[in-house]
Amino acid sequence: MKICIAQLNFLVGDYKGNAQKIILSIKEAKGESADLIVFPELAVCGYPPLDLLTYPNFVDHCEETIMEIAKECHGIAAIVGCPSRNPDIMGKNIFNSAFFLEDGKVKQVVHKALLPTYDVFDEYRYFEPFREFNTVTYKNTRIALTICEDLWDVEEDLMYTVCPMDVLYDQKPDIMINIAASPFSYMQPEKRKSVLKKNVLKYSLPLFYVNHAGAQTEMIFDGGSMVINKDGKVVRELDYFKESLSYTSISDIASLPERENSWSKEELIVEALITGIRDFFSKLGFKKATLGLSGGVDSAIVLTLAVKALGPDNVIPVMMPSPYSSDHSISDSVQLCKNLGCTFKHIQIGSVFGSMLDTLKVEFEGTAEGVTEENLQARLRGVILMALTNKFGYILLNTSNKSEVAVGYGTLYGDMCGGLSVIGDVYKTEVYSVCRFINRDQEIIPENILTKAPSAELRPGQKDSDSLPDYDILDKLLYQFIEMHNSPDELRKKGFPDELVSKVVRLVNLNEYKRFQAPPILRVSPKAFGMGRRMPLVGRYF
Amino acid sequence: MKICIAQLNFLVGDYKGNAQKIILSIKEAKGESADLIVFPELAVCGYPPLDLLTYPNFVDHCEETIMEIAKECHGIAAIVGCPSRNPDIMGKNIFNSAFFLEDGKVKQVVHKALLPTYDVFDEYRYFEPFREFNTVTYKNTRIALTICEDLWDVEEDLMYTVCPMDVLYDQKPDIMINIAASPFSYMQPEKRKSVLKKNVLKYSLPLFYVNHAGAQTEMIFDGGSMVINKDGKVVRELDYFKESLSYTSISDIASLPERENSWSKEELIVEALITGIRDFFSKLGFKKATLGLSGGVDSAIVLTLAVKALGPDNVIPVMMPSPYSSDHSISDSVQLCKNLGCTFKHIQIGSVFGSMLDTLKVEFEGTAEGVTEENLQARLRGVILMALTNKFGYILLNTSNKSEVAVGYGTLYGDMCGGLSVIGDVYKTEVYSVCRFINRDQEIIPENILTKAPSAELRPGQKDSDSLPDYDILDKLLYQFIEMHNSPDELRKKGFPDELVSKVVRLVNLNEYKRFQAPPILRVSPKAFGMGRRMPLVGRYF
Repeated sequence: MKICIAQLNFLVGDYKGNAQKIILSIKEAKGESADLIVFPELAVCGYPPLDLLTYPNFVDHCEETIMEIAKECHGIAAIVGCPSRNPDIMGKNIFNSAFFLEDGKVKQVVHKALLPTYDVFDEYRYFEPFREFNTVTYKNTRIALTICEDLWDVEEDLMYTVCPMDVLYDQKPDIMINIAASPFSYMQPEKRKSVLKKNVLKYSLPLFYVNHAGAQTEMIFDGGSMVINKDGKVVRELDYFKESLSYTSISDIASLPERENSWSKEELIVEALITGIRDFFSKLGFKKATLGLSGGVDSAIVLTLAVKALGPDNVIPVMMPSPYSSDHSISDSVQLCKNLGCTFKHIQIGSVFGSMLDTLKVEFEGTAEGVTEENLQARLRGVILMALTNKFGYILLNTSNKSEVAVGYGTLYGDMCGGLSVIGDVYKTEVYSVCRFINRDQEIIPENILTKAPSAELRPGQKDSDSLPDYDILDKLLYQFIEMHNSPDELRKKGFPDELVSKVVRLVNLNEYKRFQAPPILRVSPKAFGMGRRMPLVGRYF
Repeated sequence: MKICIAQLNFLVGDYKGNAQKIILSIKEAKGESADLIVFPELAVCGYPPLDLLTYPNFVDHCEETIMEIAKECHGIAAIVGCPSRNPDIMGKNIFNSAFFLEDGKVKQVVHKALLPTYDVFDEYRYFEPFREFNTVTYKNTRIALTICEDLWDVEEDLMYTVCPMDVLYDQKPDIMINIAASPFSYMQPEKRKSVLKKNVLKYSLPLFYVNHAGAQTEMIFDGGSMVINKDGKVVRELDYFKESLSYTSISDIASLPERENSWSKEELIVEALITGIRDFFSKLGFKKATLGLSGGVDSAIVLTLAVKALGPDNVIPVMMPSPYSSDHSISDSVQLCKNLGCTFKHIQIGSVFGSMLDTLKVEFEGTAEGVTEENLQARLRGVILMALTNKFGYILLNTSNKSEVAVGYGTLYGDMCGGLSVIGDVYKTEVYSVCRFINRDQEIIPENILTKAPSAELRPGQKDSDSLPDYDILDKLLYQFIEMHNSPDELRKKGFPDELVSKVVRLVNLNEYKRFQAPPILRVSPKAFGMGRRMPLVGRYF
């Protein structure tokens, strides 16, 4: 039996467009004499469909779409992920289902049992977990068909009280198929292979695994669809972030050579962010981006990634020096634009800044100049950039990094403006290592940008290190606090200085209000700010 | 047996402060010779604790706190809501628990079985649902103790597959006690009584019900704690939104007269919003608010509510007329401030607006004046208001109403700025009816503000009705789409004009990106924008 795994990029909510893509792939796979084509979890509605699922009508449309797709399944079978109605009066009204389509109709439907409801996942918000498990038999092959998380509960500290594959195993399946919607983090390709190999070795069965490719707002899907033989060797792994159909005959699996992708963390992050930008624009129907180009490393990397995603003609960087900007800020930025082949705008903010200070003069009489005046500059730059987006139909890219977003080193409605945060899940130290990766063959980001001390340039001689700890230690502490969920006590036990722990934890908590209003952040780490991290805005803790 | 129900206002995360409040109440109840005092769900950590629960250390602290509280329970027993560790290796690591404390120690622990995971609730994100049910016996009384949602699944279309109270009923309890964290909407007081009465009548048992009071960012708790006799009559209902301890002897229940609150929708909304503002400021440690006062009804109602919540000396309204502002905008605002007894600031934006246009002149050469220039005024006002908050430590109150927030009739980083959205869950037509309620005894909000045609005054002669349908019909359509989850097809079937449905649904979807960055919105309806409504930002739907 020849199986095609279809790693595709769907559009959330667009059941019609997604169905067209699915049907085209079925035709292509039939042309290649495949017996079965397998699509990812919730392929029909895209992932995550979120509260679209609370509109009963939407689920009806998805189920109708499955019937349309089924009509195309003659001489080939298909497994398609789609929400479906739960006919039982008890329990939630819908299932997260895998439809097995054959001979123009639905042959069997399998529902997801383990519903991830943590980090970015909200599946129990919508779906009823299923508790009956049956294999699907097709062309004399007994298939243990599961949906994503159903195979994922293999840690020592189990998150669920049932194990669907244990039940299915008793029915003596010949192969496992898992359809997934498993979003990217830079740790995910390794983690995923580790989890799936554990299953293969536990049950001694080959596995066909299909995942989404492409980005859905914050969530990026790297694909990494694969075939693993029963000895736990990956014999196919599809290219990360790309759409592709791949064919494997069950009879060949044992003899195929091992073949795994091997990407560095930096390469993964670069391709993830490019995918994130590209799909955000194309799926919204936008072409052109703008951003403030300060001469610092953050805006430099965002510009570089945007140019890779959208092309140099579609990215319009804007320099907005103030009286406190240094000469190298301009010259470094000019060099970067030259390297990338894009043209820039240059707008002076001195005059409107002066006018704003005049406007506030009476109110501010007798107060000392300080953070307010620094924020004013950042906000006036935001106003200018937003005016350009309004006038010319651009989307503003936000350039805040994760270290800044964490401790609130940024101005709400100022440099925190933007339709999409590109590096809001990349710590400052990671920004540097990703820049080094981008420059690995030739200097794209000018060396001076990578070596000078970081500064917001909002007052004379300002440096980030005036208000923040060194990024080396700050980022390590933030990682332990945010990604690893260590409490302040545990951080101190790990050797971080007491005062530093108190200061940083306080800043992170205090700035929840800024992050509440931050743009969507492309998620590349196992714990990004945004939908995957939901902390109280008002409260007293740690 | 004399039972005290303790309707209290807790602070999320503050297990130490919450424990103090709990211990003080235990002492007070003991002084009143109560046998048992009952606190709300998750009283120790506040509700909703959100991802604080993902820090294992945090749950440890909460459990330790329970031991401290237990030490105070001599001569009186207490029921206290608190998260607890699940010792089983399978399933999630924590339970949502009710601790029964007696004789200085934990006598019994009951865990929540039905975990609401819809709208604003995310409980399955954190908790393992429990499947064993046992009554608690205390002083010869057998108590069926449940937690909030455990009693809530009484609709025809059941959301869960188990019914804890059915199991407990078989153990022949004498009374039911339910501890809750049930947030407010203007429909909630009626809904809550209806649900609880259904339980009482089904099991023919009296019910003691305890809920939180006070606001936690978006979520407001009205309390409404009550005692219902076994015939389904409410014999006590605590005042909405207020903290209080109330005592009832079981032997008296049958003879107590019926006593229910009866508040209008407008009164509920007013008190909810005042509570929301007051607690947001006090729990964050802020005193003073500012807001832009335009002369329109939205800023008028927000100013009025803020003055009621914080006092006239703590609210600083700012008038920022532009060349397009009408004379009555100023005079109406002055009259309102006089009625409320607060002083206002007056800042002209003409000069900085001109300077910004000069700054953008080269870029905008040859383009027609339009929305960009309108947005510029809104954004410069935002910059001015934020400068005042930074300089003087105010919090900016946002004044957008739900109709505007729905269709995106507002400027991101402009009039959408603010630390808290006060009326973002109140439709424009509801704003008017609430104003009428506020004015019921005397004219606080000047009549002219309530009768003139709504206008953003961003260009000469502008009216809301130039770009939007009449609010009467718009609000009805929005309610059916947002609160009632009707699809566009269903809206058309309900008689809304085809073109209007397409336009409004398109606007609502299109402006998901603006709402993504909106401030927290005080929730007063059954479906507010914010954490309770999670729609895709990028997608194609409806």
